[in-house]
Amino acid sequence: MLRKKIDKLIRLLATTPPSAIWRGLLLRRHVRAAGLILALPGGPSPRVTNRGGKITVEACCFESGVLLEVHRGATLSIGSGTYINRNCYVVAAESVQIGRRVQIGWDVVIMDTDLHGHSGRPPCVKPVVIEDEVWIGCRALILKGVRVGRGAIIAAGAIVTKNVPAGTIVASPAAEVISSITAPASGIP
Amino acid sequence: MLRKKIDKLIRLLATTPPSAIWRGLLLRRHVRAAGLILALPGGPSPRVTNRGGKITVEACCFESGVLLEVHRGATLSIGSGTYINRNCYVVAAESVQIGRRVQIGWDVVIMDTDLHGHSGRPPCVKPVVIEDEVWIGCRALILKGVRVGRGAIIAAGAIVTKNVPAGTIVASPAAEVISSITAPASGIP
Amino acid sequence: MLRKKIDKLIRLLATTPPSAIWRGLLLRRHVRAAGLILALPGGPSPRVTNRGGKITVEACCFESGVLLEVHRGATLSIGSGTYINRNCYVVAAESVQIGRRVQIGWDVVIMDTDLHGHSGRPPCVKPVVIEDEVWIGCRALILKGVRVGRGAIIAAGAIVTKNVPAGTIVASPAAEVISSITAPASGIP
Repeated sequence: MLRKKIDKLIRLLATTPPSAIWRGLLLRRHVRAAGLILALPGGPSPRVTNRGGKITVEACCFESGVLLEVHRGATLSIGSGTYINRNCYVVAAESVQIGRRVQIGWDVVIMDTDLHGHSGRPPCVKPVVIEDEVWIGCRALILKGVRVGRGAIIAAGAIVTKNVPAGTIVASPAAEVISSITAPASGIP
Repeated sequence: MLRKKIDKLIRLLATTPPSAIWRGLLLRRHVRAAGLILALPGGPSPRVTNRGGKITVEACCFESGVLLEVHRGATLSIGSGTYINRNCYVVAAESVQIGRRVQIGWDVVIMDTDLHGHSGRPPCVKPVVIEDEVWIGCRALILKGVRVGRGAIIAAGAIVTKNVPAGTIVASPAAEVISSITAPASGIP
Repeated sequence: MLRKKIDKLIRLLATTPPSAIWRGLLLRRHVRAAGLILALPGGPSPRVTNRGGKITVEACCFESGVLLEVHRGATLSIGSGTYINRNCYVVAAESVQIGRRVQIGWDVVIMDTDLHGHSGRPPCVKPVVIEDEVWIGCRALILKGVRVGRGAIIAAGAIVTKNVPAGTIVASPAAEVISSITAPASGIP
């Protein structure tokens, strides 16, 4: 058993840039960690802004520029085997749960709050749950109150404001032709 | 009166990182400022590219990475109490007016020009007006010729190409289910 | 003939920041270049991640933060006179061809692959072709299998998943009013 673990560790050390392990260790200071966190090099280290909440991170992997922000009394949990790509931004004002083996593309935003209220009311806050093995394409926005079911796929650039059933693919509408360019010089009608 | 002002200043100095005030002072070199500009730390300082236009900024607050770009003869004005979050990009080729107490989320783009023409024509340029107390969600694009009425809310990721009436909420279409994943292994039909 | 070339070179040197030429030379180490590459200053240098593919770049111009990523056996070609703005990201897993005099706005993503498979299948990969004189607005996503016809215009923020006929303008749906804010205090019904 111990030998198996040592073997696994040696394999990991051989394939991972050492800086990913160091950066991951630095990240641990800000979170309750269970397992090895890798923070891959190639840009600014992941940052954590904890304003008095609780962040639990299992063994997972962060690319550069990721930002986790947790408000007073809020909870953020990230399951093992999850991968968060460059410049993702996760904000928890009440609760954001990210499951296991979730793949999150670059520039994704996940937030359980509108951040600002209007007309004198407080901001709208509703928990976000992302179940296991979800895959979120680059630039998607996952907004307050959304539950993404197990194994669902969120297409690139999708704006997600409603629950996503398990095992489905959701996307924002794709681009359509809106007009033709009239340019006699180039012969286009 | 003077005492009140001094009290206010002391309160501000106690709650603001000193670097925000220094960075704000550096920003003033590039704009006509009326009031205290804060440029919060946490990334690259806000930048101003002035190619011969006029920029007027009242007392307001910039996060890091904001970029203001003003072309020859163009005007950009930003009212007091307005807050511009990380990495926003504002381009004025003719005129962009941003009112008072406007809240602008991160990665928002506001531009009054297409920047490039086509078929040998010059780029299309039409002034943009954002009235007081508008709130613009993250990643929104506010494009040429748009007037956003007082107190309106632009949802995250919205592409705004038409006028927005005062007191309304506008959004780009949210993501919908486009298909189901057939995967016998995981039992999804 | 030689004199004409020297004249042209002198003109270029007079109008281009020298760092753009240096940075361009550094970029050449990673690509097969035919012609002068300019890599303009103002942020991080363009980066190339070549995992064993072939990158061909003619005389063209990169802004800062551009990232080109080419997988094993894949090809990426960029034609002369093409301009790629800040923080664009191009991924070729099989083949991405970008034509001549193409204008690409900031934060554009062009990829011929989903990057991740699902349900145990490999990722979907289909070549992308962008013909000459296309203009791509900022934040657009050009996804697998798309051919953008000559001289077409992709609007800002468009998610392009289907072929775009030559000489047309395509856009993702713009924001619409979804509700009104009820706020007696400010008199909005």
